[in-house]
Amino acid sequence: MTMSDTTAPAAPVVPTRGRLRPLGLDEVRITGGFWGDRQAINGEATLAHIESRLESEGWLPNYDLAVAGTLPEGRRGREFADSEVYKYLEALAWEISRTDAAADAPLEQRFRRVVTRVAAAQEPDGYLNTMFGRPGQAPRWSDLEWGHELYCLGHLFQAAVARHRTRPDADDGLVEVARRAAELVCREFGPAGRDAICGHAEVEVGLAELGRALDEPRFIAQAALFVERHGHGSLREIEWGQEYFQDDVPVRDAEALRGHAVRANYLASGATDVAVEGGDTALLDALRAQWDRTVERRTYVTGGQGSHHQDEAFGDDWELPPDRAYSETCAGIGSIMFSWRLLLATGEARHADLIERTLFNVVATSPASDGRGFYYANTLHQRVPGVPADPDGTSKRASSSLRAPWFEVSCCPPNVARTFASLAAYLATADDDGVQLHQYAPASVRTTLPDGRVVALDIETGYPVDGSIRVTIVDDAAFTLSLRVPAWATDAVLRVHSGDGLAEHPAAPGTVEVARAFRAGDIVELVLPLTVRATAPHPMVDAVRGSVAIERGPEVLALESVDFGSDIGDAVVAGDPVESDGRVVLPVLHRSTGDVVETPLVAYHDWARRGPSTMRVWVPTI
Amino acid sequence: MTMSDTTAPAAPVVPTRGRLRPLGLDEVRITGGFWGDRQAINGEATLAHIESRLESEGWLPNYDLAVAGTLPEGRRGREFADSEVYKYLEALAWEISRTDAAADAPLEQRFRRVVTRVAAAQEPDGYLNTMFGRPGQAPRWSDLEWGHELYCLGHLFQAAVARHRTRPDADDGLVEVARRAAELVCREFGPAGRDAICGHAEVEVGLAELGRALDEPRFIAQAALFVERHGHGSLREIEWGQEYFQDDVPVRDAEALRGHAVRANYLASGATDVAVEGGDTALLDALRAQWDRTVERRTYVTGGQGSHHQDEAFGDDWELPPDRAYSETCAGIGSIMFSWRLLLATGEARHADLIERTLFNVVATSPASDGRGFYYANTLHQRVPGVPADPDGTSKRASSSLRAPWFEVSCCPPNVARTFASLAAYLATADDDGVQLHQYAPASVRTTLPDGRVVALDIETGYPVDGSIRVTIVDDAAFTLSLRVPAWATDAVLRVHSGDGLAEHPAAPGTVEVARAFRAGDIVELVLPLTVRATAPHPMVDAVRGSVAIERGPEVLALESVDFGSDIGDAVVAGDPVESDGRVVLPVLHRSTGDVVETPLVAYHDWARRGPSTMRVWVPTI
Repeated sequence: MTMSDTTAPAAPVVPTRGRLRPLGLDEVRITGGFWGDRQAINGEATLAHIESRLESEGWLPNYDLAVAGTLPEGRRGREFADSEVYKYLEALAWEISRTDAAADAPLEQRFRRVVTRVAAAQEPDGYLNTMFGRPGQAPRWSDLEWGHELYCLGHLFQAAVARHRTRPDADDGLVEVARRAAELVCREFGPAGRDAICGHAEVEVGLAELGRALDEPRFIAQAALFVERHGHGSLREIEWGQEYFQDDVPVRDAEALRGHAVRANYLASGATDVAVEGGDTALLDALRAQWDRTVERRTYVTGGQGSHHQDEAFGDDWELPPDRAYSETCAGIGSIMFSWRLLLATGEARHADLIERTLFNVVATSPASDGRGFYYANTLHQRVPGVPADPDGTSKRASSSLRAPWFEVSCCPPNVARTFASLAAYLATADDDGVQLHQYAPASVRTTLPDGRVVALDIETGYPVDGSIRVTIVDDAAFTLSLRVPAWATDAVLRVHSGDGLAEHPAAPGTVEVARAFRAGDIVELVLPLTVRATAPHPMVDAVRGSVAIERGPEVLALESVDFGSDIGDAVVAGDPVESDGRVVLPVLHRSTGDVVETPLVAYHDWARRGPSTMRVWVPTI
Repeated sequence: MTMSDTTAPAAPVVPTRGRLRPLGLDEVRITGGFWGDRQAINGEATLAHIESRLESEGWLPNYDLAVAGTLPEGRRGREFADSEVYKYLEALAWEISRTDAAADAPLEQRFRRVVTRVAAAQEPDGYLNTMFGRPGQAPRWSDLEWGHELYCLGHLFQAAVARHRTRPDADDGLVEVARRAAELVCREFGPAGRDAICGHAEVEVGLAELGRALDEPRFIAQAALFVERHGHGSLREIEWGQEYFQDDVPVRDAEALRGHAVRANYLASGATDVAVEGGDTALLDALRAQWDRTVERRTYVTGGQGSHHQDEAFGDDWELPPDRAYSETCAGIGSIMFSWRLLLATGEARHADLIERTLFNVVATSPASDGRGFYYANTLHQRVPGVPADPDGTSKRASSSLRAPWFEVSCCPPNVARTFASLAAYLATADDDGVQLHQYAPASVRTTLPDGRVVALDIETGYPVDGSIRVTIVDDAAFTLSLRVPAWATDAVLRVHSGDGLAEHPAAPGTVEVARAFRAGDIVELVLPLTVRATAPHPMVDAVRGSVAIERGPEVLALESVDFGSDIGDAVVAGDPVESDGRVVLPVLHRSTGDVVETPLVAYHDWARRGPSTMRVWVPTI
């Protein structure tokens, strides 16, 4: 593990204040298990798959055409195609750090080749976009509703942050490209510039983090300006209303996330960043209240968000149809971004609870087992078996119910890739007293507290198959070890194995702490009860009345036709789910025949991995 | 009542064969009651409102600009704006007949003024469209997916049919305009022409009826050609798939209506016409099977169709979310068009049952009480009170939950207007033996059977408030009087009051017949039990599990917050609905307080007439 020589952690979000301090990829490493496997596939297959598609779809060659002066004729892809290149660069930057790739390693070479092509297309004044501003193209900033220019730059900034924090001494130039673009944004859209926002939030979170990374307060101030400008109707009315862009109500006055679910979460993330940086408690409180209401009333049991296909948007409170769940993969990632920022700011375990729910049931659902296919939308109820996507084709966003290799709007694949590559950064944090574990995976943690105490932990677990999380203390140190106890874990137990023998305590949902002078070899074990449970819906959620969802630990389970033997529309719960031979089995009545059959359930994230099927998360009880 | 001197009935659909013969507006007149009131408001307010908006929105002036040669610059409205002018002309034509307007009456003058402006814009070769074909406009037929040129002409043809059948000797020229346009369509798209279809079905039904009206078999053959060309993927792929256009599967191979619900119903209507004209039993059987499956699995309890906002489309079988019901008013009208053609072809009462359900619960729901506002979409569950529409503005299609005066896509207002103006044509039919009554309203029927027997009936009823339908025989005649007994009327009674005294028989759902030598003054009375009933959903409809809908006669009822006193999300059925003082009252538990309150229900078609409210048709029982 290479310690970066930058002072900030090698992490995507590093606030200058807040309850918890993030740990970087140089401090936390996932060493195997559920997430380790996914990180491996991401690194071995997904990244190359993405670069191959960016090349063949023309989204990377767009930069070459820009340099050759042959735009706009040859340009391919939608307005936001540039952003996928930047998300790919961000994923590569994290992956280089995660795998400790050398300067002459293939990953590093790929990264540099892409950066060179991107950098060559930047205009002398810092402007960078392949869709606007050249002869024959629409003028710069002429379509703020749909042009996505600032959105694309936001992703450029996040990629530059990843690079800066993981390879601060690299000479590839990406950080300078981002800095020049950010300076242009500040000139164009600053207090004396255009009083405008982008139709897709993202530049806020990108600018705020770039400002943090480069110690440029004016970038953070510009992010704050964009946040405050939302909600004043500066974007044109569209069929779905200005709430689509979150331009209907100012951020600090809103009661819940609304409109386009990715936009809403990205904006809330950027707003959290500027609230934290500015010490703006009122704004932070407003965001916390929005998070509460959104999680209570506008979030699926999977953690998925967005119940409208039409505008990829949140519905009204309690409007959560499982069969029309849009639950875009990127909205899940956006929700994790927002929750993570609130967790750092407040330390409250419920934010980590939602991150876990969303990671296991939205983000893990998206990629195919081989890392070369993805769900864009994540329905909770499939009535008609899907049609396999053309392996060489480009799919509609939500048209199939099977994972597809690429989409006309292909935001999700690189978003999953950057999330997996940086996932270790979401496992643990530190404060002045010690280390907090929020997500459970086999991992190593090595960090130094502000007063110089070194904390070194090795975590072993078979989670989420097994509920035991064993944290071995590697070096003697006195500190507080905090562990999250998920809200569903009502009978968790904490065991401390030390020279003093074994001490065992019940651990209530929330956070459990062990503060002591640890000795090398001490083991703190959290045992989470992974009892299978049937969850009744909130009575206000009309669409799943008279049904239950079966859950086990952090995983939502699903009834799939492959196991049920016929159309899952025929199924009625006929008893309690039980575990048998490592599988969860549910007694299910076939309504049409009267037969009750013990039917295995699958983890929702594994549905449709055995081929086209019908599937439901909520199973009728009447 | 003026008898037209054309031999065909003054009706919108006059097949050359089939089980039943339609009666025209010259043979059936609605004389009051529920539908008579709506016809009056339609004539007194809605028609003028529509013309005023067609003028102020620029959709009528587009024709003047075409003549002046100042298109495309000044053109306003969407691709299909012309079609609203034609639907308005069709409504006017029926209204002129319905009210027996003289040649110098204001209605007739309005009609002629509009026809003159439209006719002046027709090109020498018969082409007529304000959006395409002029210098600076896209070429004719260059955007078959979205251009709506043939769709607009289909509505022109229907308007011309209405005029031809009601004022066959009029010299306004509309019929010749339509004939020239139809001839152009046959030249351009005939067997030797472009092998193509329009992205929005309508030209099929228009051409078929114009062919019937003008005795031009080649127009019907052209309609048949368009029907057969559907389903071969000639239209470009779009995000929602080719099923949006019904270009995914040939009409005769499809299993259910699918895709855009208005397109699907219009195509099925035109396909029924060509099946009937061609004696194509296989095609007719396919359409009947599609109707069966669509009604069983893809139709709301209101008769509404279309459960997707995104593409205004049918969902999968059983996908019927009440809160996301799109249930477009025009899809309801399209469903009535399709059902009416099948009723004429087969005589089966279930088609009239669906027409009744859809008329009372979709079409009657749309217009505001003053006839100057409309629902475009008809949700079955409203969680947030709507925002009143700007009375001078133009609304998004489905954005508000309150009736709006006009829409950017304003197909529904003139569609409602033409349906109301021609409604008498859907009440009764004839065959060689007598007359059949399908819908119940105060009305007079005067017709002559093929063998010269004159049937004259006066119908009195307070339906749907009251269940007694009294049919008085006006002149002596021997014939068979058939009356539809709705499927929900399980204890209906038929009484025949004649010189022989009173005879009373039970009348089972379906059709009840009285065949006798009637004497003037005989009365046939059908008494339909309007007992309020709680309807459980089909168990396959997941979205309303554990809920019931309350119905009374043909009317679906709704629970509205105005009566409930708080958010209808808090409501649970606590007993059986009862009638009390002419109102239906339901005992409802307030979940949050535990109180049970006897709560009046309103007819669904009357919801939100007392101001913004929350509302639900399906009320939870658990």
